[in-house]
Amino acid sequence: MAKKLEEYVVSIPDFPEPGIIFRDVTSILQDPEGLHLAIDKILCMLDGVDFDVVVGPESRGFIFGVPVAYAKNKAFVPIRKKGKLPRETVSASYDLEYGSATIEMHKDAIKPGQKVVIVDDLIATGGTTEAMVGMIEQLGGEVVKICFVMELAGLKGREKLKDYEVESAIVYEGK
Amino acid sequence: MAKKLEEYVVSIPDFPEPGIIFRDVTSILQDPEGLHLAIDKILCMLDGVDFDVVVGPESRGFIFGVPVAYAKNKAFVPIRKKGKLPRETVSASYDLEYGSATIEMHKDAIKPGQKVVIVDDLIATGGTTEAMVGMIEQLGGEVVKICFVMELAGLKGREKLKDYEVESAIVYEGK
Repeated sequence: MAKKLEEYVVSIPDFPEPGIIFRDVTSILQDPEGLHLAIDKILCMLDGVDFDVVVGPESRGFIFGVPVAYAKNKAFVPIRKKGKLPRETVSASYDLEYGSATIEMHKDAIKPGQKVVIVDDLIATGGTTEAMVGMIEQLGGEVVKICFVMELAGLKGREKLKDYEVESAIVYEGK
Repeated sequence: MAKKLEEYVVSIPDFPEPGIIFRDVTSILQDPEGLHLAIDKILCMLDGVDFDVVVGPESRGFIFGVPVAYAKNKAFVPIRKKGKLPRETVSASYDLEYGSATIEMHKDAIKPGQKVVIVDDLIATGGTTEAMVGMIEQLGGEVVKICFVMELAGLKGREKLKDYEVESAIVYEGK
């Protein structure tokens, strides 16, 4: 019998630190049907959505973003950690539990007026996504939809994204 | 008129350090036709190849490996830097210009006898690829083909992989 997407996710208690339940997306990919199902769920979220570009962050956003761009005949724009992109960039910083992180995207990657879909594996606190939205808008792009494979609803990431259309394939109530 | 794949690659002199010409794959992805062409070239390399799993390394191997796995209805197994995978792993180290790096893959990701295709964006010295092959074979997998978008032939990475079938979409003669 066919499995549901959530049945492919292996949950690992106390990783990367005590008290955290890690939801492992690699276990989805490790099964051809799981991989297909995850990508197809995102493609369904984009049914009827008019857009030009998929944006995804390093490195698990690449896993789900590029197949979606390929299937929909769109461009893919990677967001990377500081210092990895070779051409002129814009950057944004966001807070982590301890300290902060900086991400970058190429300045010419989004043209003013382009409609952008963000794809990532997971929304937790929403900090990375909020930083991505900021960069896309700085370049004149319009974020028309934000798609996740998994959402940790207890961390309230959606509150940071309440002006945007957000959809997740699997929602976990906890953190 | 339609562009050839190599025409989408932007070459950046002196990045990340003086004397290196950086071949930027993100410029391929930034155009929907470039992205499609790159993935399709890899799919063509796999025409008639019987395999079960695509393996790709963090993070640019994810960009090209997952769409190939999706299009061919295969599993995708990510290879990551040390400490990022949550379940039990095997690991391999390889030399860098200064020091060394360690990569890991999940121990249950490849089953003995499975046929494996490696996909990555670039072959330079071949050190990462050689380390990946070692892990796959340690788990009992058989590497049936290794596909790259770009090859820096002057760095002689193929010499490390001479027992394997290696194909690159674009070959640069230099380093």
